[in-house]
Amino acid sequence: MKKYVYLFTEGSAEMRSLLGGKGANLAEMTNLGLPVPPGFTISTEGCREYYAQGAKLPAGMEEEVSRQLAVLEEQTGKRFGDAANPLLVSVRSGAVFSMPGMMDTILNLGLNSNTVVGLAAATGNERFAYDSYRRFIQMFSDVVLDIHKYEFEQLLDDVKEEQGVRFDQDLSADSLKEVIRQYKKLVHEHSGRYFPEEPKEQLFMALTAVFRSWNNDRAIVYRNLNKIDHDLGTAVNIQSMVFGNMGNDSGTGVAFSRNPSTGENKLYGEYLMNAQGEDVVAGIRTPQSIEKLADDMPHVYEQFCQIVKTLETHYKNMQDIEFTIEKGKLYMLQTRNGKRTAAAAVKVAHDLVQEGLVSTADALLMVEPTQIGQLLHRQIDSSAKLDVLAQGLPASPGAASGAIVFDADEAELLGRQGKKVLLVRTETTPDDIHGIVMAQGILTSRGGMTSHAAVVARGMGKPCVCGCEAARIDYNAKTLTIGNLTLKEGDLLSIDGATGRVISGSIPLQEPELSPEYLTLLAWADEYRRLDVRANADTPEDAAKARSFGATGIGLVRTEHMFMAQDRLPYVQQMILAETLEAREDALTHLLPMQENDFYGILKAMEGYPVCIRLLDPPLHEFLPSLEELLVETTRLRTLGNDPQTLAQKELLLKKVRHLHEFNPMLGHRGCRLGITYPEVYEMQIRAIMNAAARLTKEGLTALPEVEIPLTISREEMDFFKERIDRIAQEVMAERQVQFHYTAGTMIELPRAALLADELAASAQFFSFGTNDLTQTCLGFSRDDAEGKFLPHYLEQKILKANPFVELDRQGVGKLMRLAVAGGRATRPELLIGICGEHGGDPSSIQFCHEIGLDFVSCSPYRVPVARLAAAQAALSDGEVLGTR
Amino acid sequence: MKKYVYLFTEGSAEMRSLLGGKGANLAEMTNLGLPVPPGFTISTEGCREYYAQGAKLPAGMEEEVSRQLAVLEEQTGKRFGDAANPLLVSVRSGAVFSMPGMMDTILNLGLNSNTVVGLAAATGNERFAYDSYRRFIQMFSDVVLDIHKYEFEQLLDDVKEEQGVRFDQDLSADSLKEVIRQYKKLVHEHSGRYFPEEPKEQLFMALTAVFRSWNNDRAIVYRNLNKIDHDLGTAVNIQSMVFGNMGNDSGTGVAFSRNPSTGENKLYGEYLMNAQGEDVVAGIRTPQSIEKLADDMPHVYEQFCQIVKTLETHYKNMQDIEFTIEKGKLYMLQTRNGKRTAAAAVKVAHDLVQEGLVSTADALLMVEPTQIGQLLHRQIDSSAKLDVLAQGLPASPGAASGAIVFDADEAELLGRQGKKVLLVRTETTPDDIHGIVMAQGILTSRGGMTSHAAVVARGMGKPCVCGCEAARIDYNAKTLTIGNLTLKEGDLLSIDGATGRVISGSIPLQEPELSPEYLTLLAWADEYRRLDVRANADTPEDAAKARSFGATGIGLVRTEHMFMAQDRLPYVQQMILAETLEAREDALTHLLPMQENDFYGILKAMEGYPVCIRLLDPPLHEFLPSLEELLVETTRLRTLGNDPQTLAQKELLLKKVRHLHEFNPMLGHRGCRLGITYPEVYEMQIRAIMNAAARLTKEGLTALPEVEIPLTISREEMDFFKERIDRIAQEVMAERQVQFHYTAGTMIELPRAALLADELAASAQFFSFGTNDLTQTCLGFSRDDAEGKFLPHYLEQKILKANPFVELDRQGVGKLMRLAVAGGRATRPELLIGICGEHGGDPSSIQFCHEIGLDFVSCSPYRVPVARLAAAQAALSDGEVLGTR
Repeated sequence: MKKYVYLFTEGSAEMRSLLGGKGANLAEMTNLGLPVPPGFTISTEGCREYYAQGAKLPAGMEEEVSRQLAVLEEQTGKRFGDAANPLLVSVRSGAVFSMPGMMDTILNLGLNSNTVVGLAAATGNERFAYDSYRRFIQMFSDVVLDIHKYEFEQLLDDVKEEQGVRFDQDLSADSLKEVIRQYKKLVHEHSGRYFPEEPKEQLFMALTAVFRSWNNDRAIVYRNLNKIDHDLGTAVNIQSMVFGNMGNDSGTGVAFSRNPSTGENKLYGEYLMNAQGEDVVAGIRTPQSIEKLADDMPHVYEQFCQIVKTLETHYKNMQDIEFTIEKGKLYMLQTRNGKRTAAAAVKVAHDLVQEGLVSTADALLMVEPTQIGQLLHRQIDSSAKLDVLAQGLPASPGAASGAIVFDADEAELLGRQGKKVLLVRTETTPDDIHGIVMAQGILTSRGGMTSHAAVVARGMGKPCVCGCEAARIDYNAKTLTIGNLTLKEGDLLSIDGATGRVISGSIPLQEPELSPEYLTLLAWADEYRRLDVRANADTPEDAAKARSFGATGIGLVRTEHMFMAQDRLPYVQQMILAETLEAREDALTHLLPMQENDFYGILKAMEGYPVCIRLLDPPLHEFLPSLEELLVETTRLRTLGNDPQTLAQKELLLKKVRHLHEFNPMLGHRGCRLGITYPEVYEMQIRAIMNAAARLTKEGLTALPEVEIPLTISREEMDFFKERIDRIAQEVMAERQVQFHYTAGTMIELPRAALLADELAASAQFFSFGTNDLTQTCLGFSRDDAEGKFLPHYLEQKILKANPFVELDRQGVGKLMRLAVAGGRATRPELLIGICGEHGGDPSSIQFCHEIGLDFVSCSPYRVPVARLAAAQAALSDGEVLGTR
Repeated sequence: MKKYVYLFTEGSAEMRSLLGGKGANLAEMTNLGLPVPPGFTISTEGCREYYAQGAKLPAGMEEEVSRQLAVLEEQTGKRFGDAANPLLVSVRSGAVFSMPGMMDTILNLGLNSNTVVGLAAATGNERFAYDSYRRFIQMFSDVVLDIHKYEFEQLLDDVKEEQGVRFDQDLSADSLKEVIRQYKKLVHEHSGRYFPEEPKEQLFMALTAVFRSWNNDRAIVYRNLNKIDHDLGTAVNIQSMVFGNMGNDSGTGVAFSRNPSTGENKLYGEYLMNAQGEDVVAGIRTPQSIEKLADDMPHVYEQFCQIVKTLETHYKNMQDIEFTIEKGKLYMLQTRNGKRTAAAAVKVAHDLVQEGLVSTADALLMVEPTQIGQLLHRQIDSSAKLDVLAQGLPASPGAASGAIVFDADEAELLGRQGKKVLLVRTETTPDDIHGIVMAQGILTSRGGMTSHAAVVARGMGKPCVCGCEAARIDYNAKTLTIGNLTLKEGDLLSIDGATGRVISGSIPLQEPELSPEYLTLLAWADEYRRLDVRANADTPEDAAKARSFGATGIGLVRTEHMFMAQDRLPYVQQMILAETLEAREDALTHLLPMQENDFYGILKAMEGYPVCIRLLDPPLHEFLPSLEELLVETTRLRTLGNDPQTLAQKELLLKKVRHLHEFNPMLGHRGCRLGITYPEVYEMQIRAIMNAAARLTKEGLTALPEVEIPLTISREEMDFFKERIDRIAQEVMAERQVQFHYTAGTMIELPRAALLADELAASAQFFSFGTNDLTQTCLGFSRDDAEGKFLPHYLEQKILKANPFVELDRQGVGKLMRLAVAGGRATRPELLIGICGEHGGDPSSIQFCHEIGLDFVSCSPYRVPVARLAAAQAALSDGEVLGTR
């Protein structure tokens, strides 16, 4: 017979996957000799077996529970259902990973019409006994019998009103008996059965309900969001009750071993005398700060402080602890690694090393890379005076200011024009993605931390405040009303995604300040990681910023961003519209010195480190007015018929734009295909790069340009450009009488490039994976279309486990990458290989890049510290997936 | 020292790759004891070495040529440059594959001011000698010195005019001497040097010119078109001259051993007495039919007939032969396998088997699969009375009728509306592709057999007449004028691409008739091939046609084509525009019986064979009006402001269309992604298929539906649909009380599907490669955009060897296919695998499909015989590339 039930004395912290987090820690504390009320845990294996049997308790489980219950009775000297000295237990779920959304807790189980009398007698407190019974019925009915607790509260309120009392605690024992009578009547009406009297029946019903709650909707959503395996199952903890509400020598509280907000090494928490845990939450009385316990009960406080120290030393991590004091005796009810803010995570990890508790490697594994990133968001200038209008949920950190827009299309339109806008919606849907992308931040009046807006904004690293219910939005009038203030479209507004504040007008933003602990931690990371971390940057400013964050090179300079600048665009358009090679070359002559200065600045900012410059990539029509715009304009002019000259001009432009129009621009005339059809454009860029390198070399600086060819699919393409790159470099070196080092390589961003990597590597000196396009082509997903349309369905239906544009698709795209690495290195063992897609800043993807042996990852400047830490964690786990949750 | 020069006595037919086709066959004939004027061949290796050395004759080659020349002098008893008895030679290129466009022939080389006198004396014919000299100077100057022959002809005409004579042969020897004087003056003026006197100098200059001509523009274009390797090089043949123009006992001619047009086993050819080869071509005198030679020179005729029989028996193939008679003596100048029409190819191959000359396997290898296809084009009803307006070039076979359009956009627009149009252009460019695709046929007034229109049309199997110079096109007036007749846009016109005829009005077309030899040959093919051949068909008529052509199943039914029909579209639009599930289901209720009838018809037409039905694939916006159209319409209405009601309607539709609009529809919300987001649409289709199968089964017929899921990337998708397919099939079988067999499988058309084939095969019972989409995503080429924009550059620059949408890209796409086959069969060894893209009808691609072990290919009905033959050839060559050229 399989063993499903473990006494706390039989378990340990290592048995987490079997006993769940809570059960394993209760066992560990028990075995550390700490005062834990005795109990036992029904394992996650039991839950899995429950589902395997088609939602039935597995054979033997009931007997085993009964057997362990007998042991519990022996340990406590009380008996289940004993009218004189009844054993009461709590029933709590306990998954492997902490998981809100599941059935949580039933207290006081074991009470019935008989035992409540015994409890009253044993405690000498009839009111306490009946109040406990009332609470039990309410909790049990809510979670086991599916009768909403609201209905019970309604009854309670009615009785309170009848009795003319305001607070629960003012109800007499007799009033509570009446409440219990009505509760039982409600249960009978709703469920068609009497509230169970038999404690064992109560217990097995509760146990089954916990198992069932593993698969309720909220739990499933939570697991999807947090990528927790749906097959793990939950454990169930049965523990003998202790009561913090037995009088003024009793109490209950929660504490962190250190400050979870700042990381300061100082006990942090609060407690309430004569209360049960739920009273602390209910907020009827204000809890005391934990230090006050030293006055109230100095011995208990001293004992508690020692236990906390013991636990921190034992677990080598900051602890989040629940305790109860029953008649002056301290009981530990839970300990677990405490959740903490990003700043605290860094400080705690750092301090634990200083205190000699953990190694630097352990410290690095204690911090989530994404937390590191949060510390780099821009924040509100602390000296600014703020006019806070309302408070919403802090859904995605960072502060943002912009003009209010109420429509995603409008947000996109203005955003593309370079205007800063804040998208304000009651809630967002996948249809709004294009607007979210272009907005500075998002404010919604409805929806919680896991609403669409929140999830999407966090994914994009975009500030977001959700569920700001004080905000009333009128789409027709295009107004936002908060209290007496009514704002119109275009009015300025700010949000602080870290606190949920909604602030009037535009606010000054401050660059983040990095603590010494932060810098130390990242320095430790650099000692472990094997992957180089570069940044994607298109300007000298971004390059300098990236360097200050620890980037040792630029992995991607997108030259097209420079083409979009106001002083360039006319020449770029002239180049595109040129009817002859001469006209095109004239435009290029103007662009050459500008590009040279661009590259000079970036190479200088990254002096001494490699800078990978990608030649022009997007289709040319992106530099011209949109087809739609021109269509509307020409139709209007034609209909009016009053300005034939402008019409003729516009029609000519329309003709050219139509000529360049593509059905699938992503798969069209772009990347090195432009360089094949218009070699003079790429030659201008190559010359600009070489000129810039020559100038820097003359100045005594080290320029290390890497010329990158986008969108290749064949060695022939690479050969075509390699010949030009070498020729122009030689020409420039000869003209300028300098020597400098440069390399030529290619993006690997199409499946054929990955499949023919062995051939490409014959000509390319480096590869850089463009995993965005590689994902688009490997999966056949146009990102712009997928994320707004079918991808949410795919994630919801679990057809894909994660958004492949955020987390690298290891099975598909990853397989192509492995093929490309193997092929490329087979031809050229010293081949430099990196990644410069957005995945380069995603910890899971970085882990994969480490596994398959890349040389560098490149990401946006603000992600550089994240990548440094993630790369270190990858090296530390070396091939094994981190158990960071 | 490397050997570059081979006497004819040293070579053989097997040495074709070294000696070129012409040289190898001259050697073979020599060694068969046939009367071949002696000579030698400079090998293709010599040419390759010439280029390897940077266009210089390799060391030792001159000496070797001189040595073999000495042998030749010995064999002929004449000497090079000998004034008394001069040796004259012809210099001819001779590539491995016959290749028009290269420098072809220089005759009479060795003549100069001295030897011409000797030749006159030796032949006793001064006029003949000087005429030979004149011709030599002209040919040599044209091809070696780059002086256009037109300039020489001009001089000749001037002298003829001066002398008052009409034909060349009427010029006296003295007049010819004057012509020669002027020729030499022209050469000196043009080239700044005297015409070479020294025969050896002439020889090496000619030799170098032949090598050079390997890389002239026309030769490169030809090789690109015919996919001949640019590195092969050409051989050069030096052969002692014989003269067909030495009097009335001399002559020259060409003949085929069988009729190259019909294949009839009867000598076919023509000859001209007292003439050189070029006179036959010049067409001044009408050549005689070859039978007439029996009267003119019975002994020579008899000898010739015997030689022809010998050659055919020796080569086991129809021969194309050139001969010359010099003073009553027969000389063989060339033999090669004769080019023949499709009909002749089939008959010759068939007859050679009947005659016991070749095996059926050999016969199958003698016919190009694409020729087989030509015989299936529709032709003009032979009983129809035709009003032939003009004659152009027969650029792409087949007949077509349609309304005239002058613009590719218009052609596309009307074509999409189901109208039959004929695209009429002066010439076409890659920008016209979208119009060509939708037109019935193409007529151009300019451009030859290798013009853009011709090449593209042949590629698409679309009728085309090119270079119809009688047609004058006025784009502004939108008229086509032929003689006195002026046709307007919309007028009906027909073309016959097999003959080049342009015909007034619409003409009745006739299905092709297939000869018994054709059917026998295909029956032989079926005995050898391992691949099944299915057809792509969307209607019962197409299915029946395919079956009549030998298809044993349908590989692809595109259900979307049915949705476009006029009676369906309103319901399809209702389905798309539905705001609620109920409204959508109402539309589906109307579509279900229609689809059931569609499938019933196709399954019935293919009764007993499998029919693979692909569920809805294209993005939904394809069923709605275009965004552009609506934009123009709403802008117009808004500008006019006089019809707010229509404007509101249109704006609503525009909003929906805009909502469905995609940036890259090819990678967007289509394929099974529609089935995931709107499962009710796919469920309707599945039910329609099962209902149809149930009806047929009830009628005692065997229906074998295969339900195909498009655009999958994961097992999860396949599972999603497999469950529905099985459930609905069970429901229908239970409702209708029948049992029938069906399977469920998937297209493999995205790289991820190929990479995860092992997982997909766990749920899919068959795979069908959609190589069009697989090519688009693997290479990142949108076909619609690439073919009109950069793909021509890619082919021209040799970055790609062939259009990957026509011939399967073995390196990239092929690698994915291999991975998919291996992965799929690893999971499910009995997995059925086929291909249903356009590549399924391309012989090279079929070869590859055979190699990697597919079970079937599927192509358009008219390609089925092509595929049957190609599959047989693949099996016969089994793994080796066919040397069919």
